[in-house]
Amino acid sequence: MFWSEFPLLKKEMEDFEDYLKDALASREPLIEGAIQSLAQAGGKRVRPALVIATAHFGEYDKQKVWQIAAAVEIMHMATLIHDDIIDESDLRRGKQTVQANYGKDVAVFTGDYLFTLTFDILSGSATNQQLQKIAETIRKICEGEIKQQEERNNLSISYKDYFRRIKSKTALLFEGSCALGAGIADLSKFNIRRAAHYGRYLGMAYQLVDDVLDFSEDSQTLGKPNNNDFTQGIYTLPILYVYNETDYDQQLQELLEEPVENHSEIKEIVNKAGGLDYTLDIAESYIKKAKDKINKLENNAYQEILIALADKVIQRNF
Amino acid sequence: MFWSEFPLLKKEMEDFEDYLKDALASREPLIEGAIQSLAQAGGKRVRPALVIATAHFGEYDKQKVWQIAAAVEIMHMATLIHDDIIDESDLRRGKQTVQANYGKDVAVFTGDYLFTLTFDILSGSATNQQLQKIAETIRKICEGEIKQQEERNNLSISYKDYFRRIKSKTALLFEGSCALGAGIADLSKFNIRRAAHYGRYLGMAYQLVDDVLDFSEDSQTLGKPNNNDFTQGIYTLPILYVYNETDYDQQLQELLEEPVENHSEIKEIVNKAGGLDYTLDIAESYIKKAKDKINKLENNAYQEILIALADKVIQRNF
Repeated sequence: MFWSEFPLLKKEMEDFEDYLKDALASREPLIEGAIQSLAQAGGKRVRPALVIATAHFGEYDKQKVWQIAAAVEIMHMATLIHDDIIDESDLRRGKQTVQANYGKDVAVFTGDYLFTLTFDILSGSATNQQLQKIAETIRKICEGEIKQQEERNNLSISYKDYFRRIKSKTALLFEGSCALGAGIADLSKFNIRRAAHYGRYLGMAYQLVDDVLDFSEDSQTLGKPNNNDFTQGIYTLPILYVYNETDYDQQLQELLEEPVENHSEIKEIVNKAGGLDYTLDIAESYIKKAKDKINKLENNAYQEILIALADKVIQRNF
Repeated sequence: MFWSEFPLLKKEMEDFEDYLKDALASREPLIEGAIQSLAQAGGKRVRPALVIATAHFGEYDKQKVWQIAAAVEIMHMATLIHDDIIDESDLRRGKQTVQANYGKDVAVFTGDYLFTLTFDILSGSATNQQLQKIAETIRKICEGEIKQQEERNNLSISYKDYFRRIKSKTALLFEGSCALGAGIADLSKFNIRRAAHYGRYLGMAYQLVDDVLDFSEDSQTLGKPNNNDFTQGIYTLPILYVYNETDYDQQLQELLEEPVENHSEIKEIVNKAGGLDYTLDIAESYIKKAKDKINKLENNAYQEILIALADKVIQRNF
C-alpha cells in the first residue's frame, strides 16, 4: 500500500478503504460491477488521505471526515471514468477501464452516478457553504478539461495557460481536500488557508511530476497504455520549455507533426534539451512552498506525514 | 411557445427563460457556446413549469422557486447531453447536438459541468434534505439508464421492467419537480404527496406517449433523426405488447433481427396489431390518475393549468 511508510495513517486508510467500498455499493448489478472494478484497481487515495490528515490537526469527527473523504475520492473516480471516455483509453493503472469492459454508455452513466453519489453523501454532512465550494471546484475542473481540449495541438500556449490548466486539473481538488479537512476540524481561518495552500502547491507539483513521467521510457509504470499526452496534442511544460527556450524548437515542431511515429525521438529530445529537468525544478519549488505552509501548522505526527508526503511526490515513480 | 395557451404561466415562463440563460453563463467560451446552443434549441421547460405551477399553490417565494426550477432543468439538460453521446445522436429537436458540434469530449464535460451547476445552484436554496432527495433521484435516473442498456435487445423483458424503466427515465424527475415546488410553497405533507403523485403519473403518461410517437410515420416531429428506439434494441411497450399478446409475435421477432432494414414494416405491424392503441390507453389511465390527484388540491388557476397540461400530454404531437 502507498501509505506503508506512514503507519499512523496506514491503519486508518485501510479501514477507510472498506468504508469507501460500502459507500460505493449500488443495487444495480452492472453499475456495481463497474464501480467495484474501478475501486479494486486501487489508486493511492491521496485526496481522501489529505482530508483525513488535515482534519487530524483539530477536533476529529471521524464520521464526518470519512464522509467528506469518500465524497472527494468518488468525485475523482467520476472524472477518471469520464476522462477515459474522452481519451478512449482501454487501460488505467494496468487494468481495463470501465468503458473498455462495459462500453461507453455504461461509462457515461456510471460517471454521472458517481458525481451524484458525491453530492448525495455530501448533503448528509457538509454545510451548504462547503457544498457550494465543492460544486464550484468541480465546475472549474470541468472548465479546465474543456480548456485543455481547446488548447490541443497548440504549441503557442503560454506557460500561464499551462499552469492554469494543471491547477484546475489537479491542484484545485488537492486544495479543496485540505481545505475541507481543516474546515471540519474547525481550524482557524488562517490555518485553513495554510492547509489549502499546502494542498494547492502539492497538487501543482504532483501534476508537474506526472507530466515528466509521461516522458519516461516505460509509460507502463503509470498503468496506462503507450499513449502520451503529446501524441494526443496535449503539450505540457517539458514540451513548452523546449519549444520556447531552446534551439530544438524547429526540430521539435517538425517531429510533433507525426507524434506517434516520432514518439521515442520526441522523448529523447525533450530530455536532452532539459525539458524534464526544468519541469522537475519547478515541481521542487512548489514542494518547498507546500512544506513552508504546512510547517506553520501545529507540530504533530500528521504534520510530519504531510511533509514526508510532499517529499514522496517529488521522488515518485508511481 | 409551448405555454401560449396558459397566459398566466406563459409570462412567467418567458421571464424564467432569461433567468435560466443567465444561470447557464460560463466564462469558458467553448462551454458557453455549447450550453447556449442547447438552451436556444429550446425545449418545453415542462419540468421547471411543474416546479413553478405547484409552488403557486402556497407561499410563493419567486427567487427560491426559480432557483430550484433552473436547477431541475439544468440537470435535465445534462442528462440530454450525455444521452446524445450514448446514442451518438447528431440531432436533437432538429438542431445539432453538442457532441455533433463540439465533439464527444466537450459533450462529456459540458454534461458534467451542468450536473455540478445543478448542485451549485441548489446548495444556495435547497435544504439538505431536499438536496439529498434530488441526488437520490438523479442516482436512480442513472441506474435506470444503465438498466436500459442491460435490457437492450431483450424481447423477454416484462411489462414491470418496462414500467420501472420509464419511471426512472421520466416520471421520477416530473415527480421530483412537483414535490419540490409544493415543498417550497410549504404545502401540507398530504398535498405535497398529491402534487408528487400528479407529477409521477404525468411523467409516466408523457413517456408512454413519447414511446408511441417513436412509431409515428415522421419521426422528424421529435427533432430526432430517423433512429428509433427499436432500431437500437430498446423495446418499449408497443413492441412488448405485440410480442406478448398478439399473433404477430413470431413475425415481429424476425423483423427485429434486421431492425433498420425492416424499419417501416415494424412500425406498420406494431400499429396494425394494436400496440400503439394499447399504449395510449395506458397513458390515458395515467392521465386520469394524475388529474384525480391534482383535483384534490386547492381550486385555483394553477390547478386548471395542471389539468389542461395533463390533457395536452395525451394529445401531444410535439
